[in-house]
Amino acid sequence: MQSVRSNQQNGVAPSVLDRAMAVLAAFDGDGRRLGVSELSRRTGLAKSTVHRLAAELVGHGLLERHGTELALGLRLFELGEQVPRQRDLRAAALPYMADLRAATHQTVHLAVLDGVEVVYLEILHSADGPMLPSRVGGRLPAHATAVGKAQLAFSPPEVIDAVLRGPLTRLSTRTATAPGLLRRELARIREQGVAYDHEESLAGVVCAASPLLTTDGSVAGAISVSGRPGRLNVRRMAPAVRTAGLALSRDLAATVPWR
Amino acid sequence: MQSVRSNQQNGVAPSVLDRAMAVLAAFDGDGRRLGVSELSRRTGLAKSTVHRLAAELVGHGLLERHGTELALGLRLFELGEQVPRQRDLRAAALPYMADLRAATHQTVHLAVLDGVEVVYLEILHSADGPMLPSRVGGRLPAHATAVGKAQLAFSPPEVIDAVLRGPLTRLSTRTATAPGLLRRELARIREQGVAYDHEESLAGVVCAASPLLTTDGSVAGAISVSGRPGRLNVRRMAPAVRTAGLALSRDLAATVPWR
Repeated sequence: MQSVRSNQQNGVAPSVLDRAMAVLAAFDGDGRRLGVSELSRRTGLAKSTVHRLAAELVGHGLLERHGTELALGLRLFELGEQVPRQRDLRAAALPYMADLRAATHQTVHLAVLDGVEVVYLEILHSADGPMLPSRVGGRLPAHATAVGKAQLAFSPPEVIDAVLRGPLTRLSTRTATAPGLLRRELARIREQGVAYDHEESLAGVVCAASPLLTTDGSVAGAISVSGRPGRLNVRRMAPAVRTAGLALSRDLAATVPWR
Repeated sequence: MQSVRSNQQNGVAPSVLDRAMAVLAAFDGDGRRLGVSELSRRTGLAKSTVHRLAAELVGHGLLERHGTELALGLRLFELGEQVPRQRDLRAAALPYMADLRAATHQTVHLAVLDGVEVVYLEILHSADGPMLPSRVGGRLPAHATAVGKAQLAFSPPEVIDAVLRGPLTRLSTRTATAPGLLRRELARIREQGVAYDHEESLAGVVCAASPLLTTDGSVAGAISVSGRPGRLNVRRMAPAVRTAGLALSRDLAATVPWR
């Protein structure tokens, strides 16, 4: 996503849509409610511009007013629930995710690859799972997660190259950030069909993930189990994750109009 | 939400944002994937305008290309998951919803009021529940649902008046569409704290709903149980729904920064 500032740096005048998206993006992460001044500071837009844009965005339900502050609006939730890539995959995956949680007593994730990052579509928490770096609708760098590596391993070379060109962000002391190392790891995943995260996304969390492949061999997402390193043996979990991944892949091929 | 056409009819030139929102809204309901011609037809915008807008929306991740067709993009899901009104309420409500499903073996709904409609935030399906008129992120007219009437009963007079001014859409043969009847029904709900839907939203579905009230008495949402008319006695369910509603209301008052 291009920010207003990056467009300005590129010498391209930001469009109305660029500015509106910059206002919405300003709420990313810690922005539950923001005032016009803070929005102006975060977007680099003049306060008067933010004022005018905010009024229009409120009119469309993309923002909501709470006193003098603004928050993301319910219309975004409505539209977001209709996004086919998440709705179809989530609906198909949920029964398999529930099976996997029941069989392993671990936390189960569903994610898709988007550029060099993964976006989490669903998380089924186990009763006593670890603190997680993920949240539904949140992003993490693909190379630092099991669901990301599982998808990268089965992605076209140009997708892998874009990730390996970096920057390869370090999320924990164990994140693999050497391109050569990651390339060998992806080759191993391609061979074995399972990716691991040995505390690479967060200390205290290990994962095993399986890619979800469509009939033509392209990647539609990944499913994983996550737990605490002392209690979850990820290699022993691999067959369960792989089994769920293969069954769900077969389902997707039959039911989802991927292309 | 104003459509491009209604703006044109009002003699107001539609802004770039109006046109972009019209393109996104064209996917509402049955619009999984649409081509430029169909988008042009649905929005009343020229094909060249749709082309240009679509390219910009794709650049921001609000639309995605699938061959020659377009679909809503993952960025909408990301933003939608961050909307505080749904995220905070859903997080607070989920444990109570799970309790209610476990205790009643019925389908449990969470919804908020938005204008004259309710938007469903979460649905926990029972094992053998009826076919439902609702879906997560979907809308129904407030006057025709238990969750809608539960919220209307505790809303300011101007909100009730806006609904009763109509149009009062008929969803089933049992939908109450007479303003006087609805006004008396809302008075009864205010007294008893529970709203019912006797096959008013869909034949074959009955519901009992409780409003969720904040400490200052304003409405934050509603929670309901739904089942089949022969098997679910909604009046016998009322104490369970009311109990969950009161407990959740107390939780909301303590944890959610509503204002």
